[in-house]
Amino acid sequence: MKLATYKDGSRDGQLVVVSRDLSTAHYATGIAGKLQQVLDDWNFLAPQLEDLSQTLNTGKARHAFAFEPQMCMAPLPRAYQWADGSAYINHVELVRAARHSDVPQTFYTDPLMYQGGSDDFIGPCDPVVCADEAYGIDFEAEIAVITGDVPMCASPEEALEGVRLVVLANDVSLRHLIPHELAKGFGFFQSKPATAFSPVAITPDELGEAWQGGRVHLTLQSTWNGRKVGMCEAGPDMTFHFGQLIAHICKTRNVRAGSIVGSGTVSNRGVEVDGKKDWPKGYSCIAEKRAIETILDGKPSTEFMKFGDTIRIEMKDKNGQSLFGAIDQQIVSLDEQA
Amino acid sequence: MKLATYKDGSRDGQLVVVSRDLSTAHYATGIAGKLQQVLDDWNFLAPQLEDLSQTLNTGKARHAFAFEPQMCMAPLPRAYQWADGSAYINHVELVRAARHSDVPQTFYTDPLMYQGGSDDFIGPCDPVVCADEAYGIDFEAEIAVITGDVPMCASPEEALEGVRLVVLANDVSLRHLIPHELAKGFGFFQSKPATAFSPVAITPDELGEAWQGGRVHLTLQSTWNGRKVGMCEAGPDMTFHFGQLIAHICKTRNVRAGSIVGSGTVSNRGVEVDGKKDWPKGYSCIAEKRAIETILDGKPSTEFMKFGDTIRIEMKDKNGQSLFGAIDQQIVSLDEQA
Repeated sequence: MKLATYKDGSRDGQLVVVSRDLSTAHYATGIAGKLQQVLDDWNFLAPQLEDLSQTLNTGKARHAFAFEPQMCMAPLPRAYQWADGSAYINHVELVRAARHSDVPQTFYTDPLMYQGGSDDFIGPCDPVVCADEAYGIDFEAEIAVITGDVPMCASPEEALEGVRLVVLANDVSLRHLIPHELAKGFGFFQSKPATAFSPVAITPDELGEAWQGGRVHLTLQSTWNGRKVGMCEAGPDMTFHFGQLIAHICKTRNVRAGSIVGSGTVSNRGVEVDGKKDWPKGYSCIAEKRAIETILDGKPSTEFMKFGDTIRIEMKDKNGQSLFGAIDQQIVSLDEQA
Repeated sequence: MKLATYKDGSRDGQLVVVSRDLSTAHYATGIAGKLQQVLDDWNFLAPQLEDLSQTLNTGKARHAFAFEPQMCMAPLPRAYQWADGSAYINHVELVRAARHSDVPQTFYTDPLMYQGGSDDFIGPCDPVVCADEAYGIDFEAEIAVITGDVPMCASPEEALEGVRLVVLANDVSLRHLIPHELAKGFGFFQSKPATAFSPVAITPDELGEAWQGGRVHLTLQSTWNGRKVGMCEAGPDMTFHFGQLIAHICKTRNVRAGSIVGSGTVSNRGVEVDGKKDWPKGYSCIAEKRAIETILDGKPSTEFMKFGDTIRIEMKDKNGQSLFGAIDQQIVSLDEQA
């Protein structure tokens, strides 16, 4: 089934069930008002939502209305956890190669992960508000899962059973704040402003065959200012699957229902063409494009985002049907918003 | 007023108002069931709770009952944000001096802060469950505030206005996991398991004169295995006040209601006695004791916590009245708990 959260002026919005083709929606009132409620009591509430979903998909829901992604908040407008991995090691390899630094061997067995802020997510079509263009605004196209309860010390296989929903994310990054922040030794903080999520969160079964081994085997599209810059395969190059990422958190603590766990920037390995390196799939964040330029030309030539820039992130199934709806945002200055 | 959350088998517990002397409590049913609800709608709900609090304090509440800290969850059993600063630079100086590393000058103007997990806090008298003693289990006695909404780019003064409640925290740390984790460059993650909070959250006015300039000018007591190891002054050595810590988060994003912002380990400067350095106030975490030992003797001699160890963290007012109730926990192995 597919779920979304409609804006209604409240902090948590209103839960709606969305049809498979994203054409219609139906309020889940009577079953649950908020998505967190469903995650808290999944076994009881999810089957009721599944029933409504089936009615909606067969065109028989009595109060269905046209689905508008612009009306959506993030599926969880605020969450109790947002833990973002860096599961595509190729991304790390590229960024490090650009600064002539090796990838430690442990990075291939021990996931990189940071704890993100989760009190104020932004909707899929909401502006990315930033105080200063000079912060080096970048998008990061990712896949994320929303979990149920997973106990401390769960194995990757057990943890994978805890996946309830899949979403897309734009993990906005402020690149020029990162070097100073990482040098302080405590990890990302100011360099990671509010994250945006896709209009719709879907159960893994909606992915069919494409959901395999805790990975989504489909193409993640990133379109920057109307130009398609990334057509990245999310499956094969994902070094750690979502069960491994969740289990990484579980090493020393429980993971509770409604936790969102991200994949990090989706990234594909380069290929050798006539003795020259090439990255035909493009990129899911500008930092990676700049790393490629640095490797090839000695310095980056692509600049980060400017106020007014747009970014669209979407994933389609084999038939070209959008699965999650599109993240479709504009970069806006704080003054402009106010 | 003083607020607590009673265990009732649910994820968020039941909100209770607690009397100033911590002797009695009263369910807030009819006003609000959960603390997050109050933070979401503070201006409307807080005055109603204040009324109940006054009735309770004058002994006139009709359904008052004896307050039991053991019945408490964390005031917010789960939260949308837990951002922990390291506001007592003396702590950083000690730890760095022990490893012969200087404190960068920017640390005195730009707060250190990490994003903590907030989906699964533990109650003040709940066990600290850990899979392995070899992780180097340490307590960290801290003060924290719970905020209302504070907008992006708020000044420290504006941010300070956003403080709604004050609590104590035990920011449990797994010291032997930290070096490897920080070396990865993404900050703390597995080294910071679930945090515990005091039984009671109090409004700043309950601190009277002791709440000054965004700091709590009282003594934080830490008692390890029944031995008082820390009597640390929380006021004078706090390099960054809570308004500055909240404003640090606000540089690139909004801070939303129910965010918890911590001070980091409360720590006092050493003094010179007969040409010899001494730290008469003791320590609020074992890592600091070990740093002092390393500075004085070349190596640490105090070991981290073992299964069965206890830690009690408390703060009293000038009359010896406990303000928040005590965090009083035992370290327990995962097997033992299961």
